[in-house]
Amino acid sequence: MAKRVGVIGGGQLARMMTPPAINLGIELKVLAEAENSSAVMATTMVGDYTQFEVVAEFAKTVDVITFDHEHVPLEVLRKLEEAGVSVQPPSRALAFAQNKLEMRARLSALGLPMPIWAAISSAAELQEFLNDNGGVCILKTPIGGYDGKGVRVINTIEDAADWLEPAMLGSVGGSLLAEEKVNFSRELAQLSARTPSGEFATWPLVQTVQANGVCSEVMSPAPGADQATLERAAEIARGVADGLGVTGVLAVELFETPNGRLLINELAMRPHNSGHFSIEGSTTSQFEQHLRAVLDLPLGSTAPTQSHSVMVNLLGVDDKHDFVSSYEQVLAQHPSANVHTYGKAPRAGRKMGHVTVVGQSSADVLAEARATAQALLQG
Amino acid sequence: MAKRVGVIGGGQLARMMTPPAINLGIELKVLAEAENSSAVMATTMVGDYTQFEVVAEFAKTVDVITFDHEHVPLEVLRKLEEAGVSVQPPSRALAFAQNKLEMRARLSALGLPMPIWAAISSAAELQEFLNDNGGVCILKTPIGGYDGKGVRVINTIEDAADWLEPAMLGSVGGSLLAEEKVNFSRELAQLSARTPSGEFATWPLVQTVQANGVCSEVMSPAPGADQATLERAAEIARGVADGLGVTGVLAVELFETPNGRLLINELAMRPHNSGHFSIEGSTTSQFEQHLRAVLDLPLGSTAPTQSHSVMVNLLGVDDKHDFVSSYEQVLAQHPSANVHTYGKAPRAGRKMGHVTVVGQSSADVLAEARATAQALLQG
Repeated sequence: MAKRVGVIGGGQLARMMTPPAINLGIELKVLAEAENSSAVMATTMVGDYTQFEVVAEFAKTVDVITFDHEHVPLEVLRKLEEAGVSVQPPSRALAFAQNKLEMRARLSALGLPMPIWAAISSAAELQEFLNDNGGVCILKTPIGGYDGKGVRVINTIEDAADWLEPAMLGSVGGSLLAEEKVNFSRELAQLSARTPSGEFATWPLVQTVQANGVCSEVMSPAPGADQATLERAAEIARGVADGLGVTGVLAVELFETPNGRLLINELAMRPHNSGHFSIEGSTTSQFEQHLRAVLDLPLGSTAPTQSHSVMVNLLGVDDKHDFVSSYEQVLAQHPSANVHTYGKAPRAGRKMGHVTVVGQSSADVLAEARATAQALLQG
Repeated sequence: MAKRVGVIGGGQLARMMTPPAINLGIELKVLAEAENSSAVMATTMVGDYTQFEVVAEFAKTVDVITFDHEHVPLEVLRKLEEAGVSVQPPSRALAFAQNKLEMRARLSALGLPMPIWAAISSAAELQEFLNDNGGVCILKTPIGGYDGKGVRVINTIEDAADWLEPAMLGSVGGSLLAEEKVNFSRELAQLSARTPSGEFATWPLVQTVQANGVCSEVMSPAPGADQATLERAAEIARGVADGLGVTGVLAVELFETPNGRLLINELAMRPHNSGHFSIEGSTTSQFEQHLRAVLDLPLGSTAPTQSHSVMVNLLGVDDKHDFVSSYEQVLAQHPSANVHTYGKAPRAGRKMGHVTVVGQSSADVLAEARATAQALLQG
């Protein structure tokens, strides 16, 4: 009897879990928000994931519940767990993913390296934080933000006036999160996976490039990272996974400072854009590993298939361009590129797909991945 | 708008077309023989593929029709083509796959290298063929055989008495196919793909090992094959594909003789067991390439991802063992092995799944693939 994994959410992450499920013979089922989601092929139910009854009915059809996104209400997950459902990652881990203030507090208690931070519930507190940190900070809503939403660079308390109003503060739990604006030299991400039994695996540290708060490019391994940095990043990921009780794939986004420090920026407790390269670039992709991990199966090898991988996102240009017009020409000109599309309606800035190129030369794979993505975007 | 490929047949080949369809953003639809086929996730219709009305209704939902097997009646395909449906490979090519006598005659006319053969419709003709070929031959029913079925080694005409009865002869078109029993040193297979526009690509020549007429092991590339052999095999594949008008993936099974000759044994006009290694072992797998080819899209690179790949089939032990009992232990002991299962009910000798290992050492990948398969079979 095949093991059955249930994914809440029908986005591209659920979609990309489908191929390894087919290969491994795992039965994948998706509870999607709507018909014709990105994960339409694996969708077995359409419904509102904020309703306990809907999720509970879905849970009856699978051996474990996991996620395409981190937005399922904690009270829904806790009730599932009380009813004996295996939820991976569990609600106690997801609580930290859903509240950045709680995440910062817990990571501080674990002694993990981070930007300076504070909970802010008044203009006075924000002014004090600005005074202490060079007159600038990053202000975040502790809940509800993603891909650059719910994040602002603040130079004066006036920049945050609307967020400091009682109604707004109340809607996010009473406090905002202020963080030191880190003078970083580059952004990195450490991908890992952990099983409920405690088996842990990391992929090589990657470099990520963001554009307008959205991931645009990932290089694996991170160019020029020395052994000490690789080990420190893996240790940080292990500390987060163990300390927060994360199961499945965990992405730790990191700042690297000019003097070589690594500071934890954001966490994602699911397959993550920084790990898409692993579909072709690793013996075991993050999507296969996530399925193994949430089922508490042994983890697969994370060895690279070739020495270098580069992934470039295909971000929507407008609400018309769907990459189809240039598709044929691009495949002809770039026979070594792995083009992935997510079956989504086009929209400016939307993650519509990605391109991965693997090879032995970092310069060649970077150039080829960029050229392929560029050709698709311009077509 | 995504391109839509319709596959007739819900076996493991249709199943393994699903992951690359998801990756590339191609809409895959399957007409399966029954509910809960191997390709259940892509199944959009269940029906009898020998009925024109059923296949015609399915064809309305896709841009091209292709196949998981070669058993769709030619008259059904010809009527589809007359109605303007793109059928890839076309009926004129599949006619050769469905009749081994017509295949031999056409390959002879093309001057391609083969075992000595003859059409046999009487005991006298069979006796003459035996006399001319050392007293032994391979006798085949020209239609309906696969995986060792419809094939016999014949030493005397008595061995073929039942096949030479008028009723049996009538059911296979009036003649049997006799072939020289080739004294081969090993069996090889040349995988290729061709588009309707004529683009052609080959993978490296592989060595295949058969057990009881069923493929059990594939090594890519074929150990010790010299450049001349590789080129000759690729030329033969090109000759077959062009000469028979094959589109999509074509597998040419070859005998290699002790003096280094290559002789065409069997053909398969679809993804083939000898090409399963390509899922992990090639930049573009045979399943992705087949989808590209039948849609007349440009072909992908067939460069190996690592220097060696070995695939070992998981053949059913009995009607109980489904590889689940040993699955967890095997994943733990073989983290670099790629285990594929097909979601089929167990049956002795049935192709239930396969294991592929890729790497830089041919000895290591062979040992690891065999050990993984053995552990699954014995669990």
